[in-house]
Amino acid sequence: MRRKTFCGGIDVGGTKISAALFTSQGKMLGRRRVPIDKGSVEKPVRQVIGLIRSLEGRVRQQGGDLCAIGICIPGVVFSRSGRVWAPNIPGWDRFPLRPRLAMKTKTPLVMDSDRSAYVLGEQWCGAARGKKDVVFLAVGTGIGAGLLSGGRLIRGSRDIAGAVGWFGLDPRFRNEYAAMGCFEAEASGGSIGRKARELLDAGEPSSMLAIVKGRAERVTALTVVESARAGDALACHILDAAVIYLAMGIANIVSILNPEMIVLGGGLFQASDLLLEPIRKEFKRWAQPLAAKTVRIEVSALGEDTGLFGAAKLAWDRFG
Amino acid sequence: MRRKTFCGGIDVGGTKISAALFTSQGKMLGRRRVPIDKGSVEKPVRQVIGLIRSLEGRVRQQGGDLCAIGICIPGVVFSRSGRVWAPNIPGWDRFPLRPRLAMKTKTPLVMDSDRSAYVLGEQWCGAARGKKDVVFLAVGTGIGAGLLSGGRLIRGSRDIAGAVGWFGLDPRFRNEYAAMGCFEAEASGGSIGRKARELLDAGEPSSMLAIVKGRAERVTALTVVESARAGDALACHILDAAVIYLAMGIANIVSILNPEMIVLGGGLFQASDLLLEPIRKEFKRWAQPLAAKTVRIEVSALGEDTGLFGAAKLAWDRFG
Repeated sequence: MRRKTFCGGIDVGGTKISAALFTSQGKMLGRRRVPIDKGSVEKPVRQVIGLIRSLEGRVRQQGGDLCAIGICIPGVVFSRSGRVWAPNIPGWDRFPLRPRLAMKTKTPLVMDSDRSAYVLGEQWCGAARGKKDVVFLAVGTGIGAGLLSGGRLIRGSRDIAGAVGWFGLDPRFRNEYAAMGCFEAEASGGSIGRKARELLDAGEPSSMLAIVKGRAERVTALTVVESARAGDALACHILDAAVIYLAMGIANIVSILNPEMIVLGGGLFQASDLLLEPIRKEFKRWAQPLAAKTVRIEVSALGEDTGLFGAAKLAWDRFG
Repeated sequence: MRRKTFCGGIDVGGTKISAALFTSQGKMLGRRRVPIDKGSVEKPVRQVIGLIRSLEGRVRQQGGDLCAIGICIPGVVFSRSGRVWAPNIPGWDRFPLRPRLAMKTKTPLVMDSDRSAYVLGEQWCGAARGKKDVVFLAVGTGIGAGLLSGGRLIRGSRDIAGAVGWFGLDPRFRNEYAAMGCFEAEASGGSIGRKARELLDAGEPSSMLAIVKGRAERVTALTVVESARAGDALACHILDAAVIYLAMGIANIVSILNPEMIVLGGGLFQASDLLLEPIRKEFKRWAQPLAAKTVRIEVSALGEDTGLFGAAKLAWDRFG
């Protein structure tokens, strides 16, 4: 009998770390998920090493082979040095993660950004299965995109391609744009919450206040979504404005890259029932017409596991 | 003595067709340029066949070998069928150009869009020599981009990637956007001329009228540029507005693709002395900061021959 071979995936997120084994067919085994310990620069590193050991141990128990482990990071992985920049993890600022991990294991490691993993995961086992030209647009606290063209990841000259949160979509420059980019300032989950809080602070009436028991500072994008579902005028107005920018951002991606599919993910698209159809309708006004006609816009099929699948696929592609 | 080998390049433009031989080192020999004959669908086809024969003849005379001929088209080349769509050539609407030409010669032919040829040409022998992540932005009658990522052309799922003239850059949708896209409607050479004519028709005073001897309908982008050089307030105002959109469009390309270099070409950048510095300054407000810091923005080094070099490079890459 042939020995079974596996690749591991580890998804380092902003709040938790997940790990699992995957067969070459994309079957996931024994997923674990732990809250990330941000107590020091070293603590999440030790957590990742612990998960590497546990993946290695499980494969040994099964009498199989572990080809490699793919790891994705909520930020940028500088491919030559293996250093990472992850703004939500304290001290991971050009931190030499790949060399640090490589000292601790003989298993080959592959690292990339979360957004590259997302698009690979959806292409391998999710909404974009088998397609070669796919973009994953993640809209949560921030906005970023994973880009696949002709079956290859687009990384850019400094590994920071996909920074679409910086798309300029309105020539009337505002101060917020300088910190995070125009698209992100107008349409991310974080910005939708911020806009709502500003309007409530300015005295605009809304049922949002009841949801947070009068404490406007607790309003988030999900509060806005919940109120909009109940027909609140202010919440609907805020989402309508965001839909225009989301549609323009998607249209710009479609016009420049001519993908077969855009996969939408990230926290904001938990409200895809409210957002998807308005976006699909609005984006056609903006995108190159033939590209608009042939692209499909879908919501992530793998949800929270997208990065984990993609991390494992990075490993399979390089060492499988 | 080894026989010399060549590839040919043919650049089918909107107004003329050029052809030349190229060595593998990028040395150009015997360039010819003829005005395109738009009298029928067939006439430009016959002109291209004539140029193929002439390239073949010259190589024979020299006792050399012709590996292949690359041909670029002012529009879209559908890579599977070899059909072309070129809006400025009558009847070239899904016209089966590659099969028609292939019947007439045994020399291998490679075809692609002009914008793909532009970026390849500049990367081979022009401003972006040896770079792997390059975008050529052509701003003339229209706006389009050739995209090179990791040394490979990005073509998209239907061969229409790079349609950046359709970038949405202003949420206040205007009717012109529906025909050509927001970016093109705000910043192409064609649109700059149109805006000037509209403002003159509305009675705005300007020295532009003197240049065209009072015939406002003759005003083009070059008239605007000429007046702006002489300090005309209306012309400067029109170019200032275009610079904002050009900077936003370039910033959006930089943020999504993180190229090493943007090469600017097309008729409008004959005025690069007026436009380049203001664009370089403005685009930094909009683009992802690290990507903005590392990208260079330069004007085409090959000028009118960019497409010819790129067409030959297509042939060398495939058959050399």
